[in-house]
Amino acid sequence: MTEQGAASGGRRRSRTGGGAARRASRSAVSFDTARYITRNIPDLEVLNEEALEIIETNAETVLEEIGVNFVNNPAALERWRAAGADVRGERVHIPRGLARKLCATAPSQFTQVARNPERNVEIGGRNLVLAPVYGPPFVRDAAGGRRYATMEDFRKFVKLGYMSKWLHHSGGTVCEPTDVAVNKRHLDMLHAHMTLSDKPFMGSVTDPERARDSVEMCGILFGEEFVQQNTVMTSLININSPLTFDDVMMGAMEVYAENMQASIISPFIVGGAMAPVSVAGTLTQVLAEVLAGVAYSQLVRPGAPVIFGAFVSSIDMGSGAPTFGTPEASLVTYGAGQLARRLGLPYRSSGSFNGSKLPDAQAAYETANSLNMGLLSGVNFMLHACGWLEGGLVSSFEKFVMDADQLGVLHKMAEGISMSEEAQAMGAIREVGPGGHYLGCAHTQAHFKDAFWKTDLLDYKPFETWDEEGARDTTQLATVRVEKMLANYQQPALDPGKAEALAAYVARKKAAVPDAFT
Amino acid sequence: MTEQGAASGGRRRSRTGGGAARRASRSAVSFDTARYITRNIPDLEVLNEEALEIIETNAETVLEEIGVNFVNNPAALERWRAAGADVRGERVHIPRGLARKLCATAPSQFTQVARNPERNVEIGGRNLVLAPVYGPPFVRDAAGGRRYATMEDFRKFVKLGYMSKWLHHSGGTVCEPTDVAVNKRHLDMLHAHMTLSDKPFMGSVTDPERARDSVEMCGILFGEEFVQQNTVMTSLININSPLTFDDVMMGAMEVYAENMQASIISPFIVGGAMAPVSVAGTLTQVLAEVLAGVAYSQLVRPGAPVIFGAFVSSIDMGSGAPTFGTPEASLVTYGAGQLARRLGLPYRSSGSFNGSKLPDAQAAYETANSLNMGLLSGVNFMLHACGWLEGGLVSSFEKFVMDADQLGVLHKMAEGISMSEEAQAMGAIREVGPGGHYLGCAHTQAHFKDAFWKTDLLDYKPFETWDEEGARDTTQLATVRVEKMLANYQQPALDPGKAEALAAYVARKKAAVPDAFT
Repeated sequence: MTEQGAASGGRRRSRTGGGAARRASRSAVSFDTARYITRNIPDLEVLNEEALEIIETNAETVLEEIGVNFVNNPAALERWRAAGADVRGERVHIPRGLARKLCATAPSQFTQVARNPERNVEIGGRNLVLAPVYGPPFVRDAAGGRRYATMEDFRKFVKLGYMSKWLHHSGGTVCEPTDVAVNKRHLDMLHAHMTLSDKPFMGSVTDPERARDSVEMCGILFGEEFVQQNTVMTSLININSPLTFDDVMMGAMEVYAENMQASIISPFIVGGAMAPVSVAGTLTQVLAEVLAGVAYSQLVRPGAPVIFGAFVSSIDMGSGAPTFGTPEASLVTYGAGQLARRLGLPYRSSGSFNGSKLPDAQAAYETANSLNMGLLSGVNFMLHACGWLEGGLVSSFEKFVMDADQLGVLHKMAEGISMSEEAQAMGAIREVGPGGHYLGCAHTQAHFKDAFWKTDLLDYKPFETWDEEGARDTTQLATVRVEKMLANYQQPALDPGKAEALAAYVARKKAAVPDAFT
Repeated sequence: MTEQGAASGGRRRSRTGGGAARRASRSAVSFDTARYITRNIPDLEVLNEEALEIIETNAETVLEEIGVNFVNNPAALERWRAAGADVRGERVHIPRGLARKLCATAPSQFTQVARNPERNVEIGGRNLVLAPVYGPPFVRDAAGGRRYATMEDFRKFVKLGYMSKWLHHSGGTVCEPTDVAVNKRHLDMLHAHMTLSDKPFMGSVTDPERARDSVEMCGILFGEEFVQQNTVMTSLININSPLTFDDVMMGAMEVYAENMQASIISPFIVGGAMAPVSVAGTLTQVLAEVLAGVAYSQLVRPGAPVIFGAFVSSIDMGSGAPTFGTPEASLVTYGAGQLARRLGLPYRSSGSFNGSKLPDAQAAYETANSLNMGLLSGVNFMLHACGWLEGGLVSSFEKFVMDADQLGVLHKMAEGISMSEEAQAMGAIREVGPGGHYLGCAHTQAHFKDAFWKTDLLDYKPFETWDEEGARDTTQLATVRVEKMLANYQQPALDPGKAEALAAYVARKKAAVPDAFT
């Protein structure tokens, strides 16, 4: 745990001892991070007005007639009752139009502040923010194979994320550090995001208490008052589909909303299991669930920032295994994007979805399908944008850098087509003429350096060169890149007083209660 | 060469000897082929009206001011002069508006007839026809590595194409059979397409004489009169970009146009070398070239079917190597689709573009990027839809079946979202309710068999099962699938008289001239 040591290196110094700060500033290496994407291309709209209205009408019918369950949450039931819902037991029947009306106080766009203000992200509008894989209990790399994830793995992923140019966000549970007690690992995870990176990050959602710890740690990093007035975390709140809101996730969401922190309200759907097998049916349920969840967030605190989430996969009806990067999930994602825009809410999808066991061609096909769909469906916050493997059971080191390289493609695509005089290139076409070539012409010389997206990973060498260098496939190239990035990692500077206070907070909290592993 | 033997099995029988025909019919196994795609989703339009008008205006300026070269082709220059162009030497300056006017006689949609009428394809409109890789001099498979392609390899690819459900077209030079003389290999290639498959195919373009042979062989297969009245070949005519039309390609195109056979008029562009480094500049040149080429086809024969082609790749400005599946090429492809639709012409792009040496993750990312872009850019004829590797130097057996499986994803995506009562699934949502699951409900039971796209290749098994079965990656699974398909191949029935006549034609033509290898 060397990174942990490095992160708390200023521990014995006083808050005013500027020596460490100056040294940190001198030795700080800034890694390039691209600005979040702002799309200059349109969204693909797969549903027409009539279809959208049918789905919206059906979703209201679901909320009114069938209703949703808020489990173990009397306060939520009380809020709903006060808002005019028909509450019977834990079932909340929401009168037609009420949820949509409540959603209106949620902002259509918000800023998530990073501790390095250059890394702030705008979530909503025409923007797209990319965040890494979330949640896998296993990690994989070529050398070590598939194994349970540890806190050491977690820190490596945070470092890779910090150094990945096309990744705007440090994410949350980039892997599940199974070697740390369940009731304490959120402290180490947040500490890693706060100290090993300066990109924005996500808070803990596995218990309302842990959400409160997340807010308190942000209070140390950003200042308590600052946190109350700015969104510094975007956290992942899954709905227990179909139509069920459990007390753990809702409890965490309540903490975040009360503190003006953002939540992604996200149905978790394996099509055919948690939602109907049809795309239109799934869209109806997704919309009903998000309407209820977002409305509830606004009952907790009007104006709290939220994101319209969608996590959709299909199922292999033969084996019952979930499948990813499939066309039905893409159609749901496109459709849900349209529904989110009509609701005026930022929209979240999933990036590097795939069901493969290895970072091979299957993984890449399915990931590229998901990435393209995310860009063109108008997504504002793409979770799992890199590193996901094996249906979300595995965070892959190689795939993390492979996918992260492909995220550069999305940036270039989103720029669209420049129609400036210079881009029209009529001078170049005149200069070169029939039968000539453009390699040496003035226009090419002026623009070749940034004309084309450039990979940091893939191989375009001649066959013979590639063969002499070992005939390596993409995974082998990625292994080298992972090692090189981790070897070159340098921690971003952090005020030593804050570093000390964060480390002290984590140590105190961990000492206060015994370890729990469930 | 057992396939060749099988194909000419009826050789010694008389044309009226029905015994062989009956046996062929009894033993014929029909392999499922999906109908060509008809899109029920919109195209992505990356250019607005103003941008489109600028590009169209600039393209007319290029044709008028700079002009295009028709090389070694006095007849072409004469046709242009007669049509009102300003011809100086081999340079044709086309007055503003003339080329577009001449293009108006080209059909916006046409039928390419296959010898099995169930395999006929409609090229144009909202349709998308998928054809395999074209042109590589090398083949690769896991067992044999990378090697020069032979006629035996060629036949294997035709068989795989015939058996690939999502492939509508048998293609043309699926690999370049380097073991057959250059001046004779077109005969063997066409013979293979005609006898080993019953899907539509492409003709030879490497010499006008070989185009004539192609037409004559089609005369045997379909009947001479039928060929004059129906399009039975779609052939690939590359423009020698920038702005040059050589006599070989134009000579082949003239033969096809005169015989009402279709040509894809396709600029061949590596961005930064054969066109400006900018997307807008490339689009301008592509449009100018296609306008001139299509206009010329209509000067040869008004009404001849043609396709607006685009072959676009980028260049790695460091090494000079071409790159594939990159965002700039995607933007050109999207933009060119819009320009083609405004011209009222069918549109062609390239499918499985990639620059990788192996069918690995790089190959799959780049291919998936190209396939998605092809679907959403409104392509009507997708060449290289499967099997392409290493920037077009290699036809890969494994990648052929890997890509062909992904083509199923395009079919499902193109269907869009059904809004039928049944698809709305309100009954299912009512039946299951909050907290339930859909696996057993009536709606799921009724639809699970065809609700989700199903792979024939990829692995979704649990990790343990997959591990026990050998922990195979996608390429290893594909090797098995290639072997299995070839082992199960059965030749489609063909009238023995036609089979005999085709074999005799090929034999006679091959005997008539000495081998040439350049």
